[in-house]
Amino acid sequence: MIYLDNAATTKPSKTALSNAEKFNDELFFNPSALYANGIYNSSEIKKSKDYILSSLGALNHEVIFNSCGSESDNQAIFCAKKRGVFVTSLGEHAAVYQSFLALKDKGIKTEFVPLTPKGVIDEEYLYKIVRENKDISFISIVHVNNETGAINDINKIAKTVKSINKDIVFHSDGVQAYGKLYYKLSPEIDLYSISAHKVNALKGTGALIKKKGLNLSPLIYGGGQENGYRSGTENIFGIKVFEFASREKFANIKENYKRVLELKKAFLSNLNLENFTVISNENSSPYILSVSANGLKGEVLTHTLEKDEIIVGNGSACSSKHRFSRVLSAMGYNNEVLDGVVRISFSIDTTMDEVVFASQKLNSAVENLKKIMKG
Amino acid sequence: MIYLDNAATTKPSKTALSNAEKFNDELFFNPSALYANGIYNSSEIKKSKDYILSSLGALNHEVIFNSCGSESDNQAIFCAKKRGVFVTSLGEHAAVYQSFLALKDKGIKTEFVPLTPKGVIDEEYLYKIVRENKDISFISIVHVNNETGAINDINKIAKTVKSINKDIVFHSDGVQAYGKLYYKLSPEIDLYSISAHKVNALKGTGALIKKKGLNLSPLIYGGGQENGYRSGTENIFGIKVFEFASREKFANIKENYKRVLELKKAFLSNLNLENFTVISNENSSPYILSVSANGLKGEVLTHTLEKDEIIVGNGSACSSKHRFSRVLSAMGYNNEVLDGVVRISFSIDTTMDEVVFASQKLNSAVENLKKIMKG
Repeated sequence: MIYLDNAATTKPSKTALSNAEKFNDELFFNPSALYANGIYNSSEIKKSKDYILSSLGALNHEVIFNSCGSESDNQAIFCAKKRGVFVTSLGEHAAVYQSFLALKDKGIKTEFVPLTPKGVIDEEYLYKIVRENKDISFISIVHVNNETGAINDINKIAKTVKSINKDIVFHSDGVQAYGKLYYKLSPEIDLYSISAHKVNALKGTGALIKKKGLNLSPLIYGGGQENGYRSGTENIFGIKVFEFASREKFANIKENYKRVLELKKAFLSNLNLENFTVISNENSSPYILSVSANGLKGEVLTHTLEKDEIIVGNGSACSSKHRFSRVLSAMGYNNEVLDGVVRISFSIDTTMDEVVFASQKLNSAVENLKKIMKG
Repeated sequence: MIYLDNAATTKPSKTALSNAEKFNDELFFNPSALYANGIYNSSEIKKSKDYILSSLGALNHEVIFNSCGSESDNQAIFCAKKRGVFVTSLGEHAAVYQSFLALKDKGIKTEFVPLTPKGVIDEEYLYKIVRENKDISFISIVHVNNETGAINDINKIAKTVKSINKDIVFHSDGVQAYGKLYYKLSPEIDLYSISAHKVNALKGTGALIKKKGLNLSPLIYGGGQENGYRSGTENIFGIKVFEFASREKFANIKENYKRVLELKKAFLSNLNLENFTVISNENSSPYILSVSANGLKGEVLTHTLEKDEIIVGNGSACSSKHRFSRVLSAMGYNNEVLDGVVRISFSIDTTMDEVVFASQKLNSAVENLKKIMKG
């Protein structure tokens, strides 16, 4: 099987799993317990936090472990600011976008920054509204879009926004960036969401990176774990797998980036571009390649490739209930393009042979479907 | 090591882990993906839901998988009713109690039903306020208290409450009951919280059992997983371990109950009761035994036992930051008793030899400390 849906989820690292195994065995203890074994587990969680912060160069920040990127986004959006105008973009993951719709339902004023045809946010539009509206209290801008791989320069955006209004809380969903792009998290970013299962760790583990000193109320109240920011018994096994898998990623993050970029370029150069619209822009994340087979249906292509044991995504699994991608619509594509979208997403385990085979099969799938349609 | 803190967390079942292992390996796929492997995983989650519902005899209900019991409690409390008076008891887990304090902070009217000296709720008090106050919209009553093992007859309570006011939403935290007591969830219970890591499954997995047709908004918005009630990529591995560990529990639930009750009785009968106040009432869960060494400090006793590799809890790890237990205070105990609390909590793996050894060591620890204190 050739798995090219790594933006949806990744295969957990066997090394990370086996290194963390003891936390389900002789070290299964509750990290909040007051006996030595509990205290030891608590110190192991501290180590994981320190590692994640150092991997992001985020020395003004702290880590709140939780259950997923969506939880991180929700806590950032619902628990940092209670008043003012909330701003996000049309290029967000559903966890941000739907949370903003919920804010709107509650009567909170929201604004959605448009996207450029490249899929990044219209920065000038954002800066303009921040200058004009002093009531803006919270901004959430995705780092790497999960459907197109479009990269927003969130460090620059946060800095610019804060230079206009320093009281704004700035959040970014970094789920598709963490462990893949090489960057340092700027101190201007107050809140940053990451997810374990996108970096070969486990589903059910995530983290919200929070600027020290920033006020944040819990989304989940209870025993006061995670310094009171997130209650619920700490998922020590998931957390350690997250740390270990992150270490594997960051050990070679630049080399991985280069290699995956070669894969993406090769995939693209193999495609018969007469039949495709390339959605991902030239500076997008190497890990995501979104193309549309003009006039065909992405879902049909996905199933055709599946017969050759090639797994690709059609759009985001998260928004698989909607026919057209909200994000790609905001980039200005017409329905014909929106219908034909296929998302190919790589991992560091993807090989060049797989890329060559999959791209050829995608070409022939399109040719065959076109023939069938012509009758 | 003799582990007697099973109410805090349990050791994951090796069988359940190994049966679920494939969901981190060849079946690591995103259950919301539209290709066959994703659809297969989605069907596996459906199987887990069906099993959990059948184990509870809860045929009018559906399962929302999430990250923990605390999340279940929070969603029940914050997402079922937006208006009216919210009622709970003084015997709740922190995830309920702290959520109620948060409601109160938001200006919502709350009421706390007192406990009897046995640690169960004062039912007549509850029925009285339900009769007198038609604005009561939501009630949350713990099934088994995590500190004392006191069992509230939630089926009867829910039925009585609904017979007075059928529009009330009734929630119960069943975290310490699930897989331990034998009961059927009555259709009068609208929402019920359970947790995986209390039944030898993994931390980071829980579920909210919800009456079909009941309105509930998400606590976590996003991709619309779990029928829109809980977004975030489904934790298929955690869910399958939960199912498999639950199956192990329910296969022998009545035998387990009897055997653990023998353990508890033996522990109690071995204790020199001149030195102890027994907190757990005679009808409490066999899995939890709370005693207080009059005049001594529970924390000191805990550390003394730890030297003999006996692990017990002192109160709830969740509320370990507070000197005195809120729940035991509500039962009417004075500070001397509150200071000396030790919680012994059993699992089906606990042996009679362990119980005999641990109870003897607890006796001698108390004797020694008393001698030291007398000088």
